[in-house]
Amino acid sequence: MTGIDDLPVRDELRGKSPYGAPQLDVPVRLNTNENPYPLPEALVERITERVRAAARDLNRYPDRDAVELRTKLAEYLTDTSGYALDVRNVWAANGSNEVIQQLLQTFGGPGRTAIGFEPSYSMHGLIARGTGTGWISGPRHEDFTIDVPAAEKAIAEHRPDVVFITTPNNPTGNAVPAETVLALHAAAQAAKPSMVVVDEAYIEFSHGASLLPLLEGRPNLVVSRTMSKAFGAAGLRLGYLAAHPAVVDAVQLVRLPYHLSAVTQATALAALEHTGTLLKYVEQLKTERDRLVAELRAAGYEVTESDANFVQFGRFADSHATWRKILDRGVLVRDNGVPGWLRVTAGTPRENDAFLDAVRELKKEQEQSG
Amino acid sequence: MTGIDDLPVRDELRGKSPYGAPQLDVPVRLNTNENPYPLPEALVERITERVRAAARDLNRYPDRDAVELRTKLAEYLTDTSGYALDVRNVWAANGSNEVIQQLLQTFGGPGRTAIGFEPSYSMHGLIARGTGTGWISGPRHEDFTIDVPAAEKAIAEHRPDVVFITTPNNPTGNAVPAETVLALHAAAQAAKPSMVVVDEAYIEFSHGASLLPLLEGRPNLVVSRTMSKAFGAAGLRLGYLAAHPAVVDAVQLVRLPYHLSAVTQATALAALEHTGTLLKYVEQLKTERDRLVAELRAAGYEVTESDANFVQFGRFADSHATWRKILDRGVLVRDNGVPGWLRVTAGTPRENDAFLDAVRELKKEQEQSG
Repeated sequence: MTGIDDLPVRDELRGKSPYGAPQLDVPVRLNTNENPYPLPEALVERITERVRAAARDLNRYPDRDAVELRTKLAEYLTDTSGYALDVRNVWAANGSNEVIQQLLQTFGGPGRTAIGFEPSYSMHGLIARGTGTGWISGPRHEDFTIDVPAAEKAIAEHRPDVVFITTPNNPTGNAVPAETVLALHAAAQAAKPSMVVVDEAYIEFSHGASLLPLLEGRPNLVVSRTMSKAFGAAGLRLGYLAAHPAVVDAVQLVRLPYHLSAVTQATALAALEHTGTLLKYVEQLKTERDRLVAELRAAGYEVTESDANFVQFGRFADSHATWRKILDRGVLVRDNGVPGWLRVTAGTPRENDAFLDAVRELKKEQEQSG
Repeated sequence: MTGIDDLPVRDELRGKSPYGAPQLDVPVRLNTNENPYPLPEALVERITERVRAAARDLNRYPDRDAVELRTKLAEYLTDTSGYALDVRNVWAANGSNEVIQQLLQTFGGPGRTAIGFEPSYSMHGLIARGTGTGWISGPRHEDFTIDVPAAEKAIAEHRPDVVFITTPNNPTGNAVPAETVLALHAAAQAAKPSMVVVDEAYIEFSHGASLLPLLEGRPNLVVSRTMSKAFGAAGLRLGYLAAHPAVVDAVQLVRLPYHLSAVTQATALAALEHTGTLLKYVEQLKTERDRLVAELRAAGYEVTESDANFVQFGRFADSHATWRKILDRGVLVRDNGVPGWLRVTAGTPRENDAFLDAVRELKKEQEQSG
């Protein structure tokens, strides 16, 4: 039987597996940082209306430049950050993964390198590989904050073309201070002209503010965002970036023409009309996230500070075995491969209770057997 | 003012412009090979229903493997070609452009090359560039058929990793015989293990049959397709491929996870329920295409044989000046940069009449001034 290895695939793909969390049928799924709240029915109806209108014109190509959508995204960013942006500052694609892929095709690629501070969002490194960009794994402290002097040293030594900073960081949950971003941006520019990408996929859940104002006077800085988390629209696959207009012009040199479908644009526009309601769900999730942190600590677990809609907890001698024991109790969390730690998404109060019951039970068992 | 050239973009992107036809506001637009028939209202309603259901679950990630959609696409291919395929043979992405990008990331990329026989679909070369794949421009005869001995020689000399064959070819319109594909496939395999991609974006408009049965026993052959043309769904951005299951496994190593949104999957599934009606529009367009060919010849133009929903016509000493003169008469056709030739999409009978009036007028003017 012919298999992948019988085909002339690129050498670096041989023996690899596709990225993705196991999709298991479990009562409580807290493993992929989805928003647990379905869209409100009024928004479902608004999506339906907008898609009906788009479907009547579906024989035509979509707006290649997604002007209306980018305008509304810029308004959302301006309203929530206080930093004024307009359509020329914003670009959108099918998920922040495609945004990152376009950035790496433009500013990375063969003969160039990108750096990330790991553990972090593993797609940064995977998309680097997919675009032929060399990948450098930068350092963190034991507590998962970025080790700034060590990071500056790594940047000076490797002179990367693209620097990724994820804040709040995934899977650890901690936010990155503005001063750290500024220090690494300065180090990167000192080494060579390079781009700094601040991945703010989870920023709406943060105790602190967005770093969008840092874009002022820094054309080499990019902030990437997504509608998957705060907008409760993981199924929509809408990622976007904010940057100097020259960056938006540059990614258009590599974007596939008409990459963003008319139904995606229509659905995203509908969601942006309901921002107020959706951000109320975010407040509920922040409360639940803080409760998870407190209760996990009360139960005797170590917890990394979280500004996201998930919490990293530990420590475990064998985190995969613990992942399995939690799964046996009907709760799916994520083993991101960070030794000693697991990640749980903040779900509904009821889902979080189920998770907390499971991990409290585990502690009790441990104490009894210990 | 900071511009693209002030950013550290890749050298090969400097001075380039984004791909895409001019989007002009003109009464009759026959420039991007769109299907002129809007979707039937019953299908618009079905899309609305399916998207409403998908929107209720939009907070969750979509089916990462698009199993239902791929199953239905396989059924469509089986029904229309008589060659049995199933879900394991089919992969889908955001437009055939993304399918081609994934194929080049898997089988092309840095240090590898791809060949196409030009003029052909220019995105093949552009996506090659975007993925770091070297691009080789292969030869055609004066009448735009593939020059098989010259093509075999080019393949033997350059030993490409990927061979693109577009049938019916865009922008010329002519179909490629199965024997040509078999000859080039044999030449490619003799040179080195390589992939042959048959781009059948316009196959439903052909007088002849799909080349899907050539997949039998050829794991290195891929057929790519789209719902943009025959399904009248350019706005949907749904491309797909049929191949040996090992090819489908291989592209999953490079696909961005959850690349295909829940609304895209829902809309495509709705369209696949209405295949019968949509293929009736295809029959009308084939009749109109044949009329365009006949009337253009009767008016004294040269026309390339067409198996697509567009017609290449000429010859012009200055094709861009002629493009402008037709535009001045309210009809937008496409100047694909093929010296001496222009391309017109088959529109509705009324649109085609407007185009034919315009080009007949041009001929008369020419005769009077000559």
